[in-house]
Amino acid sequence: MNTFGRIFRVSVFGESHGEVVGVLVDGCPAGISLSDSDMLPDLGRRKSGQKGTTQRKETDIPLIKSGIFNGKTTGAPILVIFENKDTDSSAYEKIKDLPRPGHADFTAFRKFGGFNDYRGGGHFSGRLTAGIVAAGCIAKKILGQVRVEAKLVEAGSSKDVQGAVDSSLKSRDSVGGIVECTVTGLPVGLGEPFFDSVESLISHAMFSVPAIKGIEFGSGFALAKMKGSECSDSILDAKGRTGSNHEGGINGGITNGNPLSFRFAVKPTSSTALMKKTVDLKSGAQASISVEGRHDACVALRVPVIAEAMAAIVLADLMIIARKIPLTAKGGL
Amino acid sequence: MNTFGRIFRVSVFGESHGEVVGVLVDGCPAGISLSDSDMLPDLGRRKSGQKGTTQRKETDIPLIKSGIFNGKTTGAPILVIFENKDTDSSAYEKIKDLPRPGHADFTAFRKFGGFNDYRGGGHFSGRLTAGIVAAGCIAKKILGQVRVEAKLVEAGSSKDVQGAVDSSLKSRDSVGGIVECTVTGLPVGLGEPFFDSVESLISHAMFSVPAIKGIEFGSGFALAKMKGSECSDSILDAKGRTGSNHEGGINGGITNGNPLSFRFAVKPTSSTALMKKTVDLKSGAQASISVEGRHDACVALRVPVIAEAMAAIVLADLMIIARKIPLTAKGGL
Amino acid sequence: MNTFGRIFRVSVFGESHGEVVGVLVDGCPAGISLSDSDMLPDLGRRKSGQKGTTQRKETDIPLIKSGIFNGKTTGAPILVIFENKDTDSSAYEKIKDLPRPGHADFTAFRKFGGFNDYRGGGHFSGRLTAGIVAAGCIAKKILGQVRVEAKLVEAGSSKDVQGAVDSSLKSRDSVGGIVECTVTGLPVGLGEPFFDSVESLISHAMFSVPAIKGIEFGSGFALAKMKGSECSDSILDAKGRTGSNHEGGINGGITNGNPLSFRFAVKPTSSTALMKKTVDLKSGAQASISVEGRHDACVALRVPVIAEAMAAIVLADLMIIARKIPLTAKGGL
Amino acid sequence: MNTFGRIFRVSVFGESHGEVVGVLVDGCPAGISLSDSDMLPDLGRRKSGQKGTTQRKETDIPLIKSGIFNGKTTGAPILVIFENKDTDSSAYEKIKDLPRPGHADFTAFRKFGGFNDYRGGGHFSGRLTAGIVAAGCIAKKILGQVRVEAKLVEAGSSKDVQGAVDSSLKSRDSVGGIVECTVTGLPVGLGEPFFDSVESLISHAMFSVPAIKGIEFGSGFALAKMKGSECSDSILDAKGRTGSNHEGGINGGITNGNPLSFRFAVKPTSSTALMKKTVDLKSGAQASISVEGRHDACVALRVPVIAEAMAAIVLADLMIIARKIPLTAKGGL
Repeated sequence: MNTFGRIFRVSVFGESHGEVVGVLVDGCPAGISLSDSDMLPDLGRRKSGQKGTTQRKETDIPLIKSGIFNGKTTGAPILVIFENKDTDSSAYEKIKDLPRPGHADFTAFRKFGGFNDYRGGGHFSGRLTAGIVAAGCIAKKILGQVRVEAKLVEAGSSKDVQGAVDSSLKSRDSVGGIVECTVTGLPVGLGEPFFDSVESLISHAMFSVPAIKGIEFGSGFALAKMKGSECSDSILDAKGRTGSNHEGGINGGITNGNPLSFRFAVKPTSSTALMKKTVDLKSGAQASISVEGRHDACVALRVPVIAEAMAAIVLADLMIIARKIPLTAKGGL
Repeated sequence: MNTFGRIFRVSVFGESHGEVVGVLVDGCPAGISLSDSDMLPDLGRRKSGQKGTTQRKETDIPLIKSGIFNGKTTGAPILVIFENKDTDSSAYEKIKDLPRPGHADFTAFRKFGGFNDYRGGGHFSGRLTAGIVAAGCIAKKILGQVRVEAKLVEAGSSKDVQGAVDSSLKSRDSVGGIVECTVTGLPVGLGEPFFDSVESLISHAMFSVPAIKGIEFGSGFALAKMKGSECSDSILDAKGRTGSNHEGGINGGITNGNPLSFRFAVKPTSSTALMKKTVDLKSGAQASISVEGRHDACVALRVPVIAEAMAAIVLADLMIIARKIPLTAKGGL
Repeated sequence: MNTFGRIFRVSVFGESHGEVVGVLVDGCPAGISLSDSDMLPDLGRRKSGQKGTTQRKETDIPLIKSGIFNGKTTGAPILVIFENKDTDSSAYEKIKDLPRPGHADFTAFRKFGGFNDYRGGGHFSGRLTAGIVAAGCIAKKILGQVRVEAKLVEAGSSKDVQGAVDSSLKSRDSVGGIVECTVTGLPVGLGEPFFDSVESLISHAMFSVPAIKGIEFGSGFALAKMKGSECSDSILDAKGRTGSNHEGGINGGITNGNPLSFRFAVKPTSSTALMKKTVDLKSGAQASISVEGRHDACVALRVPVIAEAMAAIVLADLMIIARKIPLTAKGGL
Repeated sequence: MNTFGRIFRVSVFGESHGEVVGVLVDGCPAGISLSDSDMLPDLGRRKSGQKGTTQRKETDIPLIKSGIFNGKTTGAPILVIFENKDTDSSAYEKIKDLPRPGHADFTAFRKFGGFNDYRGGGHFSGRLTAGIVAAGCIAKKILGQVRVEAKLVEAGSSKDVQGAVDSSLKSRDSVGGIVECTVTGLPVGLGEPFFDSVESLISHAMFSVPAIKGIEFGSGFALAKMKGSECSDSILDAKGRTGSNHEGGINGGITNGNPLSFRFAVKPTSSTALMKKTVDLKSGAQASISVEGRHDACVALRVPVIAEAMAAIVLADLMIIARKIPLTAKGGL
């Protein structure tokens, strides 16, 4: 479903080439100062039009339509809308019967009996993440001292991220990447057994972004190759500080007070100018497609701010469930 | 929370050294034949007492207490209980103030103010997965023709799984592993945008098992190193069959009819006979601990059947949400 | 929370004197024809500006912002917005520290630490029901042949509804009323044991409208005065047709195929021009208040269409849960 | 579904003539002292075998199977089981194809395709309320100073409750009744707009008991006959104390600090020795039925303690959501 969270709840809506995309945030504490402009820095990081991202130039101005009074949250749902302005759908009309490999075109068509909005991926577009980033800004405010930071640490198979993007642009191809996210300042005790471990909730949120295909916490997949004697994080003091952090700040699904860390794999965008095989949905015949639309040479460039938003959304909800955030911010935040 | 699912809902309960562990399954269609013995094969695969797993010998007999009448499900909740019989807690009494590194002892103590049942990890024990496997048996019945299969493909860093376990046993250490899971026979169209992608739900479920620290779908982390031209799965026919399966059978979070495949990293159990640093929860002083209790040289040996259960639980719910499974099995299943 | 439903999910947002009110509808099947104008008849029935309702004249034009493509639902969330235009807040500024008795002013102030939007009741305003009515129009389309009808059968203590309203207007007072709702054409078997009985869900939905203070199903409170021999609905045929309908079409919380019927009590609006005692929230001193704003002589006049919407929302969700409505409307509806 | 609540979550299971009935309680704070015997007084009030209730004599001993350690809650799910011992199903075997009018026999048969457990109503039996009462005892502990009290104020149409029961017994008929519930000591601010008003949640919970057919808050249905000038509760001081309590302690769905009060209608049990028309489910032919099983002359006698439990369950959850109850009881409760 299009809603995530138990108390702090985030619902997304909209389509790539429809009128709007946006987000509805319920369960936000009252008394938090919030304005459209608070969201602009993070939205800028997500925005297209950078070198290596698509040429579509949305202004990405968030319009807060409800839930704010006198510059502060009221406890009522916060609706944030982004109007779609730069929506040239002509490229999509030509290929509407030709599902792009690696996109949701085929699955959406079949799931919704052909009634899906196919233009630019419709509701499956990466543009939906604008709402996620907006909700993330609210969540970050709720988290106060907690600091969430993500960055792209690898593109293609290179640590020279910009170099990899440049060469990808030149070859009219695309590259994937690895994003790393670290959260510091968390209290011990977030996460709810059995099913709502911190890993469970963060991965649930992150995998709603279609480009993400893998996630690991702490030493992750490397742990599978280690011995128990090597990877055990010894406990150093009563606060739970550990000597190493192979577990990524989580034991038994619950934060242990050390930095929460996770990494995830971003696949290269499947839309490139190169020719690919597909099928004609109308005739069922073999066909081929080259996507002329506007795409990302490295979609992973946009992902860090989205990952921060997702982590912040999950953690704000867990902080509320653990009664670590009051219903009303004392004196505003 | 201890419940997972929207219509087909699974709730776990119990403690390692308490009276019982078990599961409550709600939303199961009526008319499915089900008996205790249906669950024994999968429970046998999960059971301890194998070479390389702990010496604790539970009989693991599932007792179905409700929801069945005349050998068939009734549509009412199904309660399955496992009585704990072989519960020697003496080893845990000695170390109750010494949280075992890598376990939930410290985080559970802090989260629940010291009221947690510390014996054998209490509610955080791997023993809780007995209930998951029981629920998985029910889910597999619901899935009918869909086939879910997982296996351990690597232990330590070796593909010779049994060799790695043997050498781990000799050194009184433990090793991690990689488990691979494949699901065939799925229809196109499972998964619910935006937040309930198939990857989101499966990872949510899998990461509730504390030993899991990483997951990847299809080519996963390898995709981050590839180019769009290399990893795109061309579509071969109107059924959606693809030439390769880098996406692991999922596009835009929705099944595309190809085999669903994912792999995950299982860490080595942190409990070993080797000495580790910890802290005394009462005095706050530095301490050290060697765990004498019964543990797994390779906990990953037990994980495949749990992974199958989790995948089956997720997919049964998604099949119901997509109205592909009726409220009542026609003629029984 | 501001969301209701399990699969067909309705979320409301907005404030009486803010920019917008509206609704976000998730889980709607694809392929249902839907336009703004489909909603106008029901919105007209709810609208203010009628004789006996407040003088505020909103145009109440629904703007569908997402989830529709080529005139049909796509399976993606449907956002409907109403812009607030006739919002004169001056009357409320004068009384912002004087909570109106019988309204949520005092409770909202205390719950949200004074950060609530107090103008016209803010998020607690009856204006939020515009979104409910819009969602109800969508739900009615999903329900197809099922017919939901509500009417005001009593105002004040009189069956001459218009007479009661007129005399209330003259005395500058307000009157309550009784609304009756009947649903025909329902299949047997809607409602989910134990907690999601049809009565449970309909009352849950109805009591979210602040003016509702009582509800009864079938013969309701009269049953409490009857004998078992008098009120038993004998079963006449294999379809479950009953001789009488004291149970209101529900047995054990589940529809029995007979007309679903319920009645509820609407209190008179508490805002009248008459003087009432209250307290000054700033000083804590006794005060008195006469509400000059625009109000309803008989708010119950607006309630039937809201009741229909609520019932339709509940029943559409139950139909989906019972797999009686497909994910995609065959050929559109 | 068989679960209710957002954080403090109650799930029921079992059948009247199966092995067990019971309840699983999740989200209970840690550190609350709890034993089987704490539940006996309330269970005694619910128990059958009193004059005017059925002759079935269950011992109703609650067995707490999980979630307790050293006499206190641990934060893990609490499983409470009641074993069914006095289950003579012979009377039901004879009438298994003859649905009892006024019961769920017909609707359950149709909903679950005939796979439902028909003995004694199966999962639809009033015996399920044993689990509710057990959960209510836990909720009452959480509520601390808050006091929940319900009583039967009318049976048949008489205030002489015992007289009405006696005459009902003599005539081998049954009578309904009115139960009144009052909650004192509540803080201002419980209830969550828009859909989770206090009235919404309490009515949702109460209507899961099949015998309940009406509910009203404060002056309820009488309000529909009043004028705004008559029924407005003037506010007397800064704590929100009101001059009258027509609203039943709730404004805009949120507690206002005055006593929360509601009343509901309990129908007479439909099972009596008198002959009634029904249909044969196998042949579809007209039939008649006289129920020889054990029944209540006045089922309303059992309802007050169930109403208290339901109200306590709702309010405990709302207190937690409002962060008024910590995750761990300080020093135990």
